[in-house]
Amino acid sequence: MKALEEKILAEGKVYPGNILKVGSFLNHRLDVEFLLQMGKEIARLFEEENITKIITIEASGIAIAMAVAVYMKVPVVFAKKNQSANLSPDNYTSKVHSYTHNRDYDIILSKEFLNSQDRVLIVDDFLAKGKALNGLMDIVAQAGAETAGIAIAIEKGFQGGGDALRKSGIRVESLAIVESMDDCKIVFRQQH
Amino acid sequence: MKALEEKILAEGKVYPGNILKVGSFLNHRLDVEFLLQMGKEIARLFEEENITKIITIEASGIAIAMAVAVYMKVPVVFAKKNQSANLSPDNYTSKVHSYTHNRDYDIILSKEFLNSQDRVLIVDDFLAKGKALNGLMDIVAQAGAETAGIAIAIEKGFQGGGDALRKSGIRVESLAIVESMDDCKIVFRQQH
Repeated sequence: MKALEEKILAEGKVYPGNILKVGSFLNHRLDVEFLLQMGKEIARLFEEENITKIITIEASGIAIAMAVAVYMKVPVVFAKKNQSANLSPDNYTSKVHSYTHNRDYDIILSKEFLNSQDRVLIVDDFLAKGKALNGLMDIVAQAGAETAGIAIAIEKGFQGGGDALRKSGIRVESLAIVESMDDCKIVFRQQH
Repeated sequence: MKALEEKILAEGKVYPGNILKVGSFLNHRLDVEFLLQMGKEIARLFEEENITKIITIEASGIAIAMAVAVYMKVPVVFAKKNQSANLSPDNYTSKVHSYTHNRDYDIILSKEFLNSQDRVLIVDDFLAKGKALNGLMDIVAQAGAETAGIAIAIEKGFQGGGDALRKSGIRVESLAIVESMDDCKIVFRQQH
C-alpha cells in the first residue's frame, strides 16, 4: 500500500538495532482516518474469504483490527496478555516469547468468543519473527476454527517471520514490507 | 443511551463483589457496529467542545476511543501502562492505583503527542473509582492542555468516582450509569 510506505518514510523513526517506531500514527498516537484507509484495504484483500471473526492481541493490535472490522462488519476478539498466573479452563491459552521484552508470556482468549464454525482473520500492527501470530494460530486451532489468513500493517521482512508463515501455506498480507533498514535507510519489498 | 442499557441487561454478567462483565461486546469481544453507535453518541454529546484530541488508556479503552474518533475526526493517543521501570524524560507519567489488581502502576504518554494547544476528551470503557481518569487528567495538566470532558461507556455510579469528578467541575458523560447491582439485579440511573 503505497500510502503506508510514504507514511512510514515521512513519520517513521529508525533506531539502532533495526527498531522502527511509528508511534505517530499506528501504535501510540492513532491516526484514525489513516487507520480506516488501511482497514478498508485489508477488508478488500480478504473479501472473498468469508471471514466470520477477526482476532488480534492487546494492546497495539486493537486499533488496526477495529479499522478492518468497520469495513468487514464482523466482530473482533482481542487476546489478552496474562499477567497473573490464574489460567482458567474457560480460556484458550498459548505461550508466546517476546524478543522485545526477552520473556515468555501467556495469551488468553475466552472460549465463549471463538468456536469451530469460525473462519478467522488474524490482524496485527507488526510482524517480525511472528511469535505472537503463532500463539494466536495455536488458539484458533484449539477452538477447532480455521485461520483463513493473516493481515499485518507493517512487516519487517528481514526478520523472516512472514516468509516462514507463507512457506507453511498461510496467506499473509502485509500492507508494507520493510526489506532492510541498514544505515537508517528504509527499503520496501516490491509487492503486486 | 437506552440501547446500551438494553445490551448490558441482555449480555452483561454480574458476579459477587459488584463485578459486571461485558466482555461480549466492550472489552474482550468487540461488537464493532455497536461500538460505532456508542462512538457516534459520544461525538454528538461533545460536538460543541472543539475537541482536538482523544486520550484513553490501553487496552480496553482503545476500541471505544477509536469509535468516537471515527465521528469526531481527531486523533487518539492511548497512554501505556508501564511494566518496566525506565521512565524517560520524553514521556509524561503519572501513578495510578488499580483496585482490580491491588497495585500501583505508571501510565506513560509521549510528550510528542500532547501539547498545550490541545482540548482533550478523555474516553474510557469503565468508570468506577476514577483512579485511571485522575492519572490521565494529571498527564493532560502536565502538558498544559485542557481536559474538556470525560466520556465513558459504563459508569458504576455506586462507586462514586463519576460524581466526585462532576463535583470538581469536570463534565462527565456516561452512556449508562449502573446505580446498583444488589442481588445481581442491575438498576440504571435515570439520565436526561
